[in-house]
Amino acid sequence: MNRNEVTEMIVAAKIQKGIKWADVAEKIELSKEWVTAGCLGQMTFNATQAGLLGEIFALPSEAVALLQSVPYKGSLPTAIPADPLIYRFYELINVYGSTLKELIHEEFGDGIMSAIDFNMDVKREANPMGDRVSITMSGKFLPYKSY
Amino acid sequence: MNRNEVTEMIVAAKIQKGIKWADVAEKIELSKEWVTAGCLGQMTFNATQAGLLGEIFALPSEAVALLQSVPYKGSLPTAIPADPLIYRFYELINVYGSTLKELIHEEFGDGIMSAIDFNMDVKREANPMGDRVSITMSGKFLPYKSY
Amino acid sequence: MNRNEVTEMIVAAKIQKGIKWADVAEKIELSKEWVTAGCLGQMTFNATQAGLLGEIFALPSEAVALLQSVPYKGSLPTAIPADPLIYRFYELINVYGSTLKELIHEEFGDGIMSAIDFNMDVKREANPMGDRVSITMSGKFLPYKSY
Amino acid sequence: MNRNEVTEMIVAAKIQKGIKWADVAEKIELSKEWVTAGCLGQMTFNATQAGLLGEIFALPSEAVALLQSVPYKGSLPTAIPADPLIYRFYELINVYGSTLKELIHEEFGDGIMSAIDFNMDVKREANPMGDRVSITMSGKFLPYKSY
Amino acid sequence: MNRNEVTEMIVAAKIQKGIKWADVAEKIELSKEWVTAGCLGQMTFNATQAGLLGEIFALPSEAVALLQSVPYKGSLPTAIPADPLIYRFYELINVYGSTLKELIHEEFGDGIMSAIDFNMDVKREANPMGDRVSITMSGKFLPYKSY
Amino acid sequence: MNRNEVTEMIVAAKIQKGIKWADVAEKIELSKEWVTAGCLGQMTFNATQAGLLGEIFALPSEAVALLQSVPYKGSLPTAIPADPLIYRFYELINVYGSTLKELIHEEFGDGIMSAIDFNMDVKREANPMGDRVSITMSGKFLPYKSY
Amino acid sequence: MNRNEVTEMIVAAKIQKGIKWADVAEKIELSKEWVTAGCLGQMTFNATQAGLLGEIFALPSEAVALLQSVPYKGSLPTAIPADPLIYRFYELINVYGSTLKELIHEEFGDGIMSAIDFNMDVKREANPMGDRVSITMSGKFLPYKSY
Amino acid sequence: MNRNEVTEMIVAAKIQKGIKWADVAEKIELSKEWVTAGCLGQMTFNATQAGLLGEIFALPSEAVALLQSVPYKGSLPTAIPADPLIYRFYELINVYGSTLKELIHEEFGDGIMSAIDFNMDVKREANPMGDRVSITMSGKFLPYKSY
Amino acid sequence: MNRNEVTEMIVAAKIQKGIKWADVAEKIELSKEWVTAGCLGQMTFNATQAGLLGEIFALPSEAVALLQSVPYKGSLPTAIPADPLIYRFYELINVYGSTLKELIHEEFGDGIMSAIDFNMDVKREANPMGDRVSITMSGKFLPYKSY
Amino acid sequence: MNRNEVTEMIVAAKIQKGIKWADVAEKIELSKEWVTAGCLGQMTFNATQAGLLGEIFALPSEAVALLQSVPYKGSLPTAIPADPLIYRFYELINVYGSTLKELIHEEFGDGIMSAIDFNMDVKREANPMGDRVSITMSGKFLPYKSY
Repeated sequence: MNRNEVTEMIVAAKIQKGIKWADVAEKIELSKEWVTAGCLGQMTFNATQAGLLGEIFALPSEAVALLQSVPYKGSLPTAIPADPLIYRFYELINVYGSTLKELIHEEFGDGIMSAIDFNMDVKREANPMGDRVSITMSGKFLPYKSY
Repeated sequence: MNRNEVTEMIVAAKIQKGIKWADVAEKIELSKEWVTAGCLGQMTFNATQAGLLGEIFALPSEAVALLQSVPYKGSLPTAIPADPLIYRFYELINVYGSTLKELIHEEFGDGIMSAIDFNMDVKREANPMGDRVSITMSGKFLPYKSY
Repeated sequence: MNRNEVTEMIVAAKIQKGIKWADVAEKIELSKEWVTAGCLGQMTFNATQAGLLGEIFALPSEAVALLQSVPYKGSLPTAIPADPLIYRFYELINVYGSTLKELIHEEFGDGIMSAIDFNMDVKREANPMGDRVSITMSGKFLPYKSY
Repeated sequence: MNRNEVTEMIVAAKIQKGIKWADVAEKIELSKEWVTAGCLGQMTFNATQAGLLGEIFALPSEAVALLQSVPYKGSLPTAIPADPLIYRFYELINVYGSTLKELIHEEFGDGIMSAIDFNMDVKREANPMGDRVSITMSGKFLPYKSY
Repeated sequence: MNRNEVTEMIVAAKIQKGIKWADVAEKIELSKEWVTAGCLGQMTFNATQAGLLGEIFALPSEAVALLQSVPYKGSLPTAIPADPLIYRFYELINVYGSTLKELIHEEFGDGIMSAIDFNMDVKREANPMGDRVSITMSGKFLPYKSY
Repeated sequence: MNRNEVTEMIVAAKIQKGIKWADVAEKIELSKEWVTAGCLGQMTFNATQAGLLGEIFALPSEAVALLQSVPYKGSLPTAIPADPLIYRFYELINVYGSTLKELIHEEFGDGIMSAIDFNMDVKREANPMGDRVSITMSGKFLPYKSY
Repeated sequence: MNRNEVTEMIVAAKIQKGIKWADVAEKIELSKEWVTAGCLGQMTFNATQAGLLGEIFALPSEAVALLQSVPYKGSLPTAIPADPLIYRFYELINVYGSTLKELIHEEFGDGIMSAIDFNMDVKREANPMGDRVSITMSGKFLPYKSY
Repeated sequence: MNRNEVTEMIVAAKIQKGIKWADVAEKIELSKEWVTAGCLGQMTFNATQAGLLGEIFALPSEAVALLQSVPYKGSLPTAIPADPLIYRFYELINVYGSTLKELIHEEFGDGIMSAIDFNMDVKREANPMGDRVSITMSGKFLPYKSY
Repeated sequence: MNRNEVTEMIVAAKIQKGIKWADVAEKIELSKEWVTAGCLGQMTFNATQAGLLGEIFALPSEAVALLQSVPYKGSLPTAIPADPLIYRFYELINVYGSTLKELIHEEFGDGIMSAIDFNMDVKREANPMGDRVSITMSGKFLPYKSY
Repeated sequence: MNRNEVTEMIVAAKIQKGIKWADVAEKIELSKEWVTAGCLGQMTFNATQAGLLGEIFALPSEAVALLQSVPYKGSLPTAIPADPLIYRFYELINVYGSTLKELIHEEFGDGIMSAIDFNMDVKREANPMGDRVSITMSGKFLPYKSY
């Protein structure tokens, strides 16, 4: 058994049992963004969290152990994602990538927004023209320093 | 002359004259995100906006005309971006892409977040542990409908 | 079991039982284009539709549940499709892509034709020189708006 | 001078002079789809048509000669197009490619829709929910025959 | 079971039983080129042909049904084929591709040689300097027509 | 100046002067296939042939020298050719490649058809259903020998 | 069972039994280079040779039959090999490829060194500075001939 | 001016002046293999050697300086080389790569043949069946050592 | 069973038994860097080492034999690694690769740092601003020599 | 003028004037690693540093301004570097990448070594068996934190 198989077991159990990610997150007492990423094989759980997930999704003990090991991260099957929802984010980087680079450098100087010291919040934004997806990302600015 | 050359002229003038994107945006009376994207060859300006940009960056009339034509969009020179700042956004899609897919479908059902009916806001978030980059994205949810 | 396996089960049952897509569509009371796409793992069915498909193709209940979950979309095994019928559509984009871009922008301005708020109709066009395939696509125009 | 340079000359002249593709087509007395494709380096003009284009876009005689030679076709700079408008068509092949294959084979048997004996019509479809892009494609069905 | 598995069953049976493609073609009363392509998953057989193949290769009825469904065509595992015999044909396109384009356009004008309305004959050409492989290809010329 | 520039000079002169490949071949007293390939930068001419080409296309002496040096061969700008005429040959390898491999091995055993000790003949085949392109390829069979 | 599986069976048996390629070659009475290539799925054995290999590696009769069929050749899992030993040969082509081309053409004119009518010898070269790997390759020169 | 331009200057001068690589090597008093590789931008010359090359090919002093700087190595324009002569070497790695790996490890244990502490000799091998290209490569064996 | 499966068995056992790489290295009496690389399928163990590993991870004898055979090396599933930790090293080569090249050539002349006669040490560097990862690499310099 | 052109000007001036990176670094009073990376277009200089570089390399004022703008980083012309010196580092990631991942996670838990808060030291390590290249890398450990 490897971590990918644990992910498949969780996804299959979720569909069969009709569990929602938001409910899983509430039980683990963490954000739905981080918990979902972890269940999909991108984050590492501690023993208590992994034990709870084992109960929620009825996982064998081997899977519970694997949830506590650091996974090989990355969830895209191809360099350019084919799925329309995920592709739109790739397109945003393509269209706005140089803009993000210019504006962050203008404000902060040379450096990057961390993708590790990072958190994200996804929510519904009611709108009479049609509801919107609102995503807020927050990452620590890390400057390049000369030495 | 083509649109890429106009972008290069704008970027060169900006560095030589020490102009800031935020100031350009203020003069055009639009957000710095949209204006920067347009100056970098991703959006289409109307005649008034293009004329103003021509003055700010001292562009020839041929360039001003090109700013009003729809560009072939996309600002990444390679499928996977090499620049560390831009790569971090690609990594976020790689690590969180399947999470975004799950959470948006859980909230809205099958469909996508529009990358066209979309806006974005980039700002500094003061933090005693080190300031953070805060990015808010808002895109209309577009559902797949059966027919 | 995952969604790809459900697709394979449907395709295998279809060949064994000699079922036609047009007949499936009629029973689901939707277009043959949308129903076929859904059966091939590109769309999400509701409970009633999934139940009917389960009867038509003799699927197990786990498969019926999977038909109601949103799939990871995309049906091309390679970036450039090898199958001659599908390649011809890729070639049309290659030959006519810039033409479509020019004509849509000339008529509507900057923006795109939605591939989500979209429908399609495939039919036979009788012709003494040899019958023709006629495909009509209709997608909502989505404009880029400044902000 | 090569055909790509002729395309760039035409596009630059079009923007500078504010010419519309629809008007060019009317002068050449052919569809706007075929004429635009030809001007963008995908089709071959006869001497009369090339001469007219030379007048409309003020092209040198070398360019007029090149418009009458068969071009190396293909207008995508990358295998997967980055421009959002053109990408949507690629996405449609990705999502609906296997569907088109199934429905055309169900109706006609093994074979393809010709991309050569082919024509296309792009038009605006008025709609109170927002106007739509309507594209009709018609290609001769070519059967595989045993021998 | 899918069509690829049928191909593997046929190839395995052929090696075990020592059957020759030429003999299979004779029994099906078609050319060895078309029959071999079909057995390797590139063409669609009718019921009679599929039944005969079922007998020759001792295939189960599910396989016989699959031989009558239109396959997803394409037999190269990589975009550039690694096998030396097949690579030589790729090399010929690389070295002679632009020549074929020039000569066909010089003779016929703009258009293509059909790969669908096509047949091929492979035979041995005796030669005192060493026998040669002789391949004759014949495809209908399809002109691009303005519209 | 390099060989690619010589090819471009020849192609430009050919279009400007309205020269035909078949006529060039007649003057060089070789087949049109080999001469065209050479003019397109794939073969090496001797001094007499290069001199004649220099006269026909009005080439400078530096170009005449380059026609006698061995070129870096290969005329496809991308691994999978985008041009419809050339792509059809790629498709034939994709669909018939494994067939060619099987039939040549069945007749000759393990080995290849040479792409070096090779010649080709392209001609028009009159046909009431529409004229056809007929291509005959002949390459020496080279066996793999154990040692 | 397919040829790749036969290769895996041979490699596994070799490791378990501690057999050396040189000893296998001696029993087959051919060079170790050709025999190893054949055992790794790149060459075709005759019935006697295949029978001997069946005994040496304790292969089932189906595997012995497969050793006599012509394999789909090519042993690199990626276009650029990752294994350091094999990569060094790729690097040699990268660094010395144009040199080999120049020197062979200078000596022989336009043509190639055959990779089919070819043999190779790998041996240890004692050296006080550290022993060396010595590889001798010999391939028939095949000239391009005009026609 | 950069090193690639120096390579182009050398190659152009060589063709114009009818110089042979073997003669250049003799004047530099080194092997033709190493000298050709250096002239093609893969090796670094000392001041004396670079001065001599400057005289032979009538290079400007800037080029002579560049010949003494270490180049960015690699002479293949694509990952898989298109030129038939160079491709045959790539094919040899594809067909014989795993064989070379097995035989070198069998003789020497884990490690590689150095591509740096390496030399090569290319010569003509007279043969009544047609002359052959003979290439001898010698590279120091470098073992992986545990630590 | 192949070497990849042995790697998977070791990794699974390590997680189940809560073994640390540092402890394994201590038992084998070698560095943790080399031992981990070997356990992950990149190095070759001798009989004693393999036997010890068999005990530590409870491996079958077939696996113990495989640990003593030279593996096909390379541990990246894609050319550009997706995992954030491993990607950072790729990014360092991208950002600092040309710098390493310049500085090593400035100090040593033309040549490379060996990746075979190489060792590495990874350790924690305490730091009040946050602990750091410290990696020391040492590889023999191998000069290119003329011949 | 763009940053790449500034890099080319610096490199050309360095070769013509025989300047050493170590001397440049001493004048800028920073490490040779950071200064070289900056001169090669990977880091951003402040006004004083850029001014000094302008004097050292005799750069025009436009170039001095560009040295103070943040560059698009990345110095590899291809995803897998062809140059042997740089490739060895890529190979180290391929062979040792999973080892680095395991050992860093074992010591620090889930997270990465920063490539931004990072410094590097390259030096010669005298050794009687042949001098060695010694590289020390130090990067802050950044943990993934749940939220």
